[in-house]
Amino acid sequence: MLDYLNDISENYMKDKSFKPNNRLLMGPGPSNVHPKVLKALARPTIGHLDPQFIDLMDDIKSLLKYAFQTENEVTFAVSGPGSVGMETCLVNLIEPGDKVVVCINGVFGGRMKDIIERCGATPFEVTAPWGSAIDPSELENKLSQHEDASIVAFVHAETSTGAKSDIKTLAEIAHKYDCLTIADTVTSLGGIPLLIDDWNIDCSYSGTQKCLSCPPGLSPITFNERAVNLIKNRKSKVQSWFMDLNLVLGYWGSGTKRAYHHTAPINSLYGLHEALLLLKQEGLEQAWERHQSNGQKLVNELGAIGILPYVKADERLPELTSVAVPAGVDEADVRKQLLEKHNIEIGAGLGDLAGKIWRIGFMGYTSNEENIDTFVSAIRGILENK
Amino acid sequence: MLDYLNDISENYMKDKSFKPNNRLLMGPGPSNVHPKVLKALARPTIGHLDPQFIDLMDDIKSLLKYAFQTENEVTFAVSGPGSVGMETCLVNLIEPGDKVVVCINGVFGGRMKDIIERCGATPFEVTAPWGSAIDPSELENKLSQHEDASIVAFVHAETSTGAKSDIKTLAEIAHKYDCLTIADTVTSLGGIPLLIDDWNIDCSYSGTQKCLSCPPGLSPITFNERAVNLIKNRKSKVQSWFMDLNLVLGYWGSGTKRAYHHTAPINSLYGLHEALLLLKQEGLEQAWERHQSNGQKLVNELGAIGILPYVKADERLPELTSVAVPAGVDEADVRKQLLEKHNIEIGAGLGDLAGKIWRIGFMGYTSNEENIDTFVSAIRGILENK
Repeated sequence: MLDYLNDISENYMKDKSFKPNNRLLMGPGPSNVHPKVLKALARPTIGHLDPQFIDLMDDIKSLLKYAFQTENEVTFAVSGPGSVGMETCLVNLIEPGDKVVVCINGVFGGRMKDIIERCGATPFEVTAPWGSAIDPSELENKLSQHEDASIVAFVHAETSTGAKSDIKTLAEIAHKYDCLTIADTVTSLGGIPLLIDDWNIDCSYSGTQKCLSCPPGLSPITFNERAVNLIKNRKSKVQSWFMDLNLVLGYWGSGTKRAYHHTAPINSLYGLHEALLLLKQEGLEQAWERHQSNGQKLVNELGAIGILPYVKADERLPELTSVAVPAGVDEADVRKQLLEKHNIEIGAGLGDLAGKIWRIGFMGYTSNEENIDTFVSAIRGILENK
Repeated sequence: MLDYLNDISENYMKDKSFKPNNRLLMGPGPSNVHPKVLKALARPTIGHLDPQFIDLMDDIKSLLKYAFQTENEVTFAVSGPGSVGMETCLVNLIEPGDKVVVCINGVFGGRMKDIIERCGATPFEVTAPWGSAIDPSELENKLSQHEDASIVAFVHAETSTGAKSDIKTLAEIAHKYDCLTIADTVTSLGGIPLLIDDWNIDCSYSGTQKCLSCPPGLSPITFNERAVNLIKNRKSKVQSWFMDLNLVLGYWGSGTKRAYHHTAPINSLYGLHEALLLLKQEGLEQAWERHQSNGQKLVNELGAIGILPYVKADERLPELTSVAVPAGVDEADVRKQLLEKHNIEIGAGLGDLAGKIWRIGFMGYTSNEENIDTFVSAIRGILENK
């Protein structure tokens, strides 16, 4: 009955434990994970309804409120990567027939549009060139043309380009037209100023593998009362069972009584808790300042060897710098050499920017001065010897 | 700006690393995680497009083929818990207007029905009492009444009751009516005989936190060619972007070129790889035999102190035994004492069986003879002293 096992086993690369190299992760994420977070992942698994675990969930909620700068009761970690967070926000807030304005200046705005369509809603696009911020006046124009739109979705830190949009202003305009706002903060949470309550962001999702020094696999998420009320009063069922907030909150809600919904990724949540504690110990403003100053130093050092930022200064993310590939350079070969010879990962361009830029992340535990020197001397050596 | 931070920090249970107790996990999952798997989780994170990681993904696919006993090329791990695996199978295979027969003898069949409805399809139920297997003749009856049904969904090992259905026979009947089959194997994979190819199961999803000795958070999944063709030829888009197999396979597909879809939960996959290696080293048949013989011993030992199985012998899962709560016993108090005094977790009944049964899991790394003695002497002591 098991006679084809031998064939299968011939396909194995190896029949032993996987031992990854120690990479310096300077791509668009994951960034390097703090050693304390790695250690936390390996603690013994307990049950998803264990009172100890319920306490941990409550701690994670409090710490996420701090990270998001919000008092939203509905603030927790979705049991899936950032893309599941994105889809969770959209499928809960959108009903078939809704009109949704979506701001697109890179991959992730485009992904939101795709999901909006899958929800049976009509998307109206506000676009900006890849590598630029969304122009608030374009949003105002679009909303004045489509006054029946009920939701505006935008990306704070566009991971595919390294551009930052002014989502405080975008949210102000959206609310003028009585729209609810959804913000992608995957690459901004813990890295640059983000004030969910002060900026009146109704709903936001993020990721763990960028500025939080944590592995990928969870999506911090927050909904304010207005968003929760909209979800509670939907006319139609949320199209996803797993993402239906009305069900998820039976588990992640408040009180000591929690109902089983799905089995949470226990050990991953140990890691997130540890990462959020580290953020709190450092202080959110200090973390923002670290990302800002190290990002600036990296840009300066790269500029000194002729590698120039692709995004203009006032729209540039300090934690994710996209740079123009210098003329005549085989960009894929440089990335390959960085990885193979120096154990350094940087990111390629995507979509419109494929082949034109490198994306150099400097997020979370990766973001320290020593790593600037390591990286700059490695890439300088490769470019000089080409 | 951060002036409400102090309020938030007062809510913390503690401002230090989380140190869970060492529990003996004898509930319906998670089960105890093998120490080598915990160790693997803590290895350094690398990128989700790193060639080393692509090799690891290929190894995981090969090892999952072994575990599922299939040569299906489309065999991988969904980046979410078992419920996401369930929804991934259903949303990909079902289109609005489809007729789907769903076998319900516990929570998980019911959950499938809910998702089928959210897909815009019509479910036809084949039911059995909670704690019993699905009767194949009932499926035959239902299919003969609804010859336009195109899919049959069923649960191999019903985690909410401890009952096993004969899915080989259910699949035979389904195929007689030209239906495609979806099997929930969350609690059976690695625990009891499961032969995806020999039994002609077209599509199946599982979990990592049951018989694989791995933490929760990933869902092993497999689709045969017939299922994949159906997905490739859908008339409508899959309603979920994240779960759309046409997109996911750009990342988990074959060849060395992998397109970014979402960021995989890197460290969780280190753990799954290690767990699958352990399964292969033990041997699948040996793992089945271990679960079978330890499960039988557990039933015998519990019987000797008057705790009797709820499910009849030929439908009983060796890896998950539900037992009737003895008359006059406060079942919640017993579970509380087991947890607080003995660090042992067992499960309560759900739905129809709440308050009536305990669910005693004996899965994966938990399943060894020593744990039988530990558990039986603990529960005997509690029941004697009540």
